[in-house]
Amino acid sequence: MTQVLLLDGLRRVDATTPVVRADDLGVLRGESVFETARIAAGRAVFLDAHLRRLAASAERLDIALPRGWEALAEAACQGKDDGVLRLVCTKGPPPLGFAVVTDVPEETLRAREHGVRVMTLTLGVTALQRAEAPWLLGGVKSTSYAVNMATLRYAHDEGADDAIWVSSDGEVLEAPTATVAIVRDGVLFTPPSSVGILAGTTLQGVLDLERVPATVRRIPAAELHEADEVMLLSSVRGVAPVTALDGRELGIGPVTKDLREAFEASLS
Amino acid sequence: MTQVLLLDGLRRVDATTPVVRADDLGVLRGESVFETARIAAGRAVFLDAHLRRLAASAERLDIALPRGWEALAEAACQGKDDGVLRLVCTKGPPPLGFAVVTDVPEETLRAREHGVRVMTLTLGVTALQRAEAPWLLGGVKSTSYAVNMATLRYAHDEGADDAIWVSSDGEVLEAPTATVAIVRDGVLFTPPSSVGILAGTTLQGVLDLERVPATVRRIPAAELHEADEVMLLSSVRGVAPVTALDGRELGIGPVTKDLREAFEASLS
Repeated sequence: MTQVLLLDGLRRVDATTPVVRADDLGVLRGESVFETARIAAGRAVFLDAHLRRLAASAERLDIALPRGWEALAEAACQGKDDGVLRLVCTKGPPPLGFAVVTDVPEETLRAREHGVRVMTLTLGVTALQRAEAPWLLGGVKSTSYAVNMATLRYAHDEGADDAIWVSSDGEVLEAPTATVAIVRDGVLFTPPSSVGILAGTTLQGVLDLERVPATVRRIPAAELHEADEVMLLSSVRGVAPVTALDGRELGIGPVTKDLREAFEASLS
Repeated sequence: MTQVLLLDGLRRVDATTPVVRADDLGVLRGESVFETARIAAGRAVFLDAHLRRLAASAERLDIALPRGWEALAEAACQGKDDGVLRLVCTKGPPPLGFAVVTDVPEETLRAREHGVRVMTLTLGVTALQRAEAPWLLGGVKSTSYAVNMATLRYAHDEGADDAIWVSSDGEVLEAPTATVAIVRDGVLFTPPSSVGILAGTTLQGVLDLERVPATVRRIPAAELHEADEVMLLSSVRGVAPVTALDGRELGIGPVTKDLREAFEASLS
């Protein structure tokens, strides 16, 4: 069941009740920032990291972020053992902050357990383009996500569960809603934010467990295709094994399995 | 003054009244389609062309577009001599259609009369990339417009009024909210939609006046910089002369002036 809580006064509203104005720039121009966090044991996981990223995204979109997100998240997650917390702030004017709480979709739980079949798709830009052109909003989590959703739809139509974007000059970037990591000879590699991708909160959480030697560096697509293991890291799905990549069967490798178990255990 | 009219029942609501749900995919994922039309003499200019484009965009975003847009536009424009009509349909579920009517901003009228100073900025993709990768949504008018708005903000911060996107391989694409046309030796050139840009309704309206020989073809950025005249074509601003491009002063040329006058006269 979907629950909606407004930042202003922590007022709870029925999900079917409209809360956003027609002329809000979040509605007309996709100028909102958002974060999706996992709810575990009545609390939002990695809330501080999510709120830091929310604030950084708001600055890039010139959104005057109101205060009070900790209290909003706390009120929204209270009494909920697990679930999905979305925090959204539109540009307005005036900016409108709210939380949307939903159950974890069955499909997400299945993907976490059984993994996802993935295809690579180009994002059209070179690896360093977005760092050089700040107006392209690399690393900003706005609600202008139509391309992310269209990429997933395209992958689904082609029989895959998810996609990994590669740059036009052949480097691994990110997935439409997740960070990419690969394993080669027992070492985990993941691309740096200098290639215009979002700094993953789940990736950071997994690295902090110190279960595996890890290196942050640019990854040629050829290495992705030769990797021993590939995984997608995101807030709600957690550590999702990539069981097939562009048709090559990968199964669920030992490092991915260990990271997934350790990560899930760390949340409870 | 802003007026909002819902597609469902043509119900008029106060602009400050929320109409969109927090969990609408238009709000959470920028998955809405929209059109902006000029209101002249109580009617929406080129309404048929706008509605065709709205339907085409909705198909690409997998939005089940409801019916009744002609009646909505008619009701929204009634009695208004001039203004701006925005038609929006979110993905929902369920999809929500509405119209937002506003006055023409003073700034837009000034830009139409005195022209705009423009800088070129890269869009990061090659000219043909978006035609080859449909998930990048070239030519789709969705509300995932954060990059368009960030491009305009960047241009403003650099002292320009507007921007023209060029591809990473050096071709003229479009402006964040307008079509680009150049004049060389009395002939108008404008890029084809095969470079992933939106098919301009105002461009079509101007071409239909048959005031100038016109050719639709790919335009190297070098030609833009050597052009006799440059103009931006969009629904509300109409034919806006580019009076300076990347610092080169252009003034308002004779073809642009004639097209602007003929176009404005055709609307009254």
